[in-house]
Amino acid sequence: MSDAIQPHVDIPFSVPFTHRLRFTADVLGRDDEVLLKLLEAAPGEAARVQFWVDEGMAAAVPALIERIEAFCARHPGRVAQAGNVQLVPGGEAIKNDIHILERMLKVINHHNLDRRSYILVIGGGAVLDAVGFAAAIAHRGIRLIRFPTTTLGQADSGVGVKNGVNLFRKKNWLGAFAVPWAVVNDEALLATLSHRDFLCGFSEAVKVSLLKDPAMFDQLCRLAPRIRQRDMTAAGPMIRASATWHLRHITQGGDPFEMLEARPLDYGHWSAHKLEPMTDFELRHGEAVSIGVAIDTVYSSLMFGFPEADARRVLRCLADLGLPLDHPLLANTQTLFEGLEEFRQHLGGRLTLTMLHAIGKPFEIHEVDYDAMSQAIGMVREYAHSHGQEVSVN
Amino acid sequence: MSDAIQPHVDIPFSVPFTHRLRFTADVLGRDDEVLLKLLEAAPGEAARVQFWVDEGMAAAVPALIERIEAFCARHPGRVAQAGNVQLVPGGEAIKNDIHILERMLKVINHHNLDRRSYILVIGGGAVLDAVGFAAAIAHRGIRLIRFPTTTLGQADSGVGVKNGVNLFRKKNWLGAFAVPWAVVNDEALLATLSHRDFLCGFSEAVKVSLLKDPAMFDQLCRLAPRIRQRDMTAAGPMIRASATWHLRHITQGGDPFEMLEARPLDYGHWSAHKLEPMTDFELRHGEAVSIGVAIDTVYSSLMFGFPEADARRVLRCLADLGLPLDHPLLANTQTLFEGLEEFRQHLGGRLTLTMLHAIGKPFEIHEVDYDAMSQAIGMVREYAHSHGQEVSVN
Repeated sequence: MSDAIQPHVDIPFSVPFTHRLRFTADVLGRDDEVLLKLLEAAPGEAARVQFWVDEGMAAAVPALIERIEAFCARHPGRVAQAGNVQLVPGGEAIKNDIHILERMLKVINHHNLDRRSYILVIGGGAVLDAVGFAAAIAHRGIRLIRFPTTTLGQADSGVGVKNGVNLFRKKNWLGAFAVPWAVVNDEALLATLSHRDFLCGFSEAVKVSLLKDPAMFDQLCRLAPRIRQRDMTAAGPMIRASATWHLRHITQGGDPFEMLEARPLDYGHWSAHKLEPMTDFELRHGEAVSIGVAIDTVYSSLMFGFPEADARRVLRCLADLGLPLDHPLLANTQTLFEGLEEFRQHLGGRLTLTMLHAIGKPFEIHEVDYDAMSQAIGMVREYAHSHGQEVSVN
Repeated sequence: MSDAIQPHVDIPFSVPFTHRLRFTADVLGRDDEVLLKLLEAAPGEAARVQFWVDEGMAAAVPALIERIEAFCARHPGRVAQAGNVQLVPGGEAIKNDIHILERMLKVINHHNLDRRSYILVIGGGAVLDAVGFAAAIAHRGIRLIRFPTTTLGQADSGVGVKNGVNLFRKKNWLGAFAVPWAVVNDEALLATLSHRDFLCGFSEAVKVSLLKDPAMFDQLCRLAPRIRQRDMTAAGPMIRASATWHLRHITQGGDPFEMLEARPLDYGHWSAHKLEPMTDFELRHGEAVSIGVAIDTVYSSLMFGFPEADARRVLRCLADLGLPLDHPLLANTQTLFEGLEEFRQHLGGRLTLTMLHAIGKPFEIHEVDYDAMSQAIGMVREYAHSHGQEVSVN
C-alpha cells in the first residue's frame, strides 16, 4: 500500500507557467511573424483566434479592424479568425456593466472557443481587465494575448497576472489571477494616444525604477524632457525597462498571486487609489500615482533616511515628465488618510506599505505617522507650487 | 540601466501553493482543534468564517447547523462567524442556476469577506464546485475550506484544484483553477450517505490504484466485500489512500492546472462522461466510472498487453464493491463513441487517452480502434451478465 498516508498532509507545490512578453514596432504589419509564432496550434491546424478591440481605439485607428482581418487572411493556414472582430467600450464602462461580461461569454461560447483557442484583446487597461476575466473563467481559461494600447498598460498593468470587473460598486471585486499567454507591447498602438494619456505610464516607470534600479532612475531623469516631447527613442526604452521590471518582479518576486502581505509594486498607491475617486476620476491613475510616489518618497526622506537630494530629484523627474505633483483636494488630508484603511482592507490582514531607505532599497512598514505624512504632503505641494506645477494637470 | 531587456522575453516561473489535507473522525466535535489550526488569523484576531451547507446534508443531519454554531461559540477568540449558515441546493441544481451564483456573491459582499477570510463549504461535489467558484472570483480568491460529504468527494474531486458551474447547458463551462486552502475529509459526514452513494467513491479508488499503486489495488480487491458492507475500518483507509494519491498526482504530477494534453486521472472517463447524459443521469458519476474503467482495462488487455488475469481481477473488484459493469445503453456503441470526440473537444487539441500496459504502468494513446473497443465493451457486458451483475445497479 502507498506509503506516507497520514492524517495531516501539507503539500507545498508549484504551478508552472510561462510568461511571454514581446516588443514590436508594428505587429499587425511588418512584425506579424512575432504574433504568428505566439499562436501555437496542433500540427497541420490553424490557431483559432477571436479578436476583441476597444471601441475608442477602433475609432482612433479606422484601419485597425481591416488590418486585423488582413493579417488573418494573409495566413490562412496558421490563423483561423473565430467570428468578427468584437468591439467593446473602453474605460470603467466595460468593467461596471455586468451585461458586457455576459455578452463576452456568449460570444466565446457561440464560436466554440476551447482551452487551446486564443482571445486577442487590444485596448486600455480596463478592456484588458474585463476581457481577460471573461477569458479566464470560460472553460477555466482560454489563452489570452494582450495588446495594451496605453503607456500605462505597456509599462505596468498589461504585463500583470490579474484581471477583474467591478461589482457592488467596488473596483475589481470580481476577478481572478490568470497568467496571460502573451503580452505584445506594440509601439504603433501608442500613436493615437492623447498627450495626457501618453505621459501617464511614466509614473509607474519612475516607481519601479525607485524600487529596483537606480541606473534606470538616472536615465529617466535624463530622458524626462524628451519623453515629455513624445520622443519615442527616449520613451520606448523606458517603457521596455518598466515592463521588464514589472514582469521580473511578478515572475521572480516569490508572490505572483499576491498571497503575502507586502505589495512592493503598490509603492505610492495608497494615496493614489484614494485620490482617483476623491477627484471623481478627474485625475487619471498615472497622474494619481505620480502624486502618491512623490508623497511616499518625501515621507521616506522625513522618516527613514531616504536622501533629501534624491527626493528632490524624484519630484523634479516627475515634473519634467509633465506629471502632476499636486491637486487641490490634497488639502483634505483627513479624507485622504481614509485611503490607508481602505488599502489595508483591500489587502486583508495588516496594513503593509512599502517605503524606501534609498533608491533601490525598499522595505515594509505597518504604521504611519500622520503628522509626518501631513508634512510630506505639504512639502510636495510646496515644491509643485514653487515650480509652477498647477498648470501641468491639464 | 537594467540588463537583459530584449524584444522577446519568455519567462518560465512558478506560483507557490500549499495544499492542506486533513482526515478526521468528527471535526465539528472532538477533532475541532484540526479545524481551528487551519483558520490562521493575524495575532490577536479571530478568523472570519462563512459557512455554506448542502441543503440535503442539513436535512439528513438536523443537528449540523447547531453544531457549526456551537463550534464558533466555543472559540470566540479564534473564530468569528460571518453571518448565518447559508443553505444551498445540492446536486446539479446549484450548478445550473446562475442566480444562485449571484446570491453567493451578494452574501460574500454583504458580510465584507476579504482575501484573508474563510469560506467553509460542506457538501457533495456539485456544492463544492459552485461555492468554490464563487469563492475563487470574489476579491480574486477567498480562502476555501472544503468538507466533502460523499465518498466520491473525499476520495477524488474534493482534493482537486478545480471548480465550476454549468452555463449554456454545458457542464463546467464557467470555472477556474483554484487551490483550496484546505480539504477536511471527516468520517462523520459520511454517516448519512445512501448505500448507493457510499459505494460510488470506490470506482475512483480502483482507478487511481490501477494508475499508481499495485499494492493498493491488491488491498482494494481483498477489502472490497467489507467495503460493500460499509465497514469503515476497510473503507476509511481506502478513501485516505485514494485522496492521497489524487492529491499527490495533482501536486507532483507536473501539470496541476491541466495545461498539457494528457489527463491520466481521467482514465476510463471518456465513456463515463458520455454514459451519464446518455442515461439521463440515472447512472451516478461513480457508477459510470466503474463501467468506464472496466472497458478501458479490457481494451488495454486486448491491445496493449495488460495481463488478462489482472483485467479479470479489476472486473471482479468492481463487482465485489457493488459497482455496476453494465448498462443497457452500452449496446448503443455509436452514440457512446461520440464521447471520444466530446472528450477531445473538452481537452482541446488532440485526443489523448490514458491506457495501461500493466497495473501502475499507464501511457497515452491518440487513436482508438473502434472494433477492438466494441469487443472490449462486449466482453465487459458478458462478464457482468455471467456474474449476475444486472441487479447491482439498484
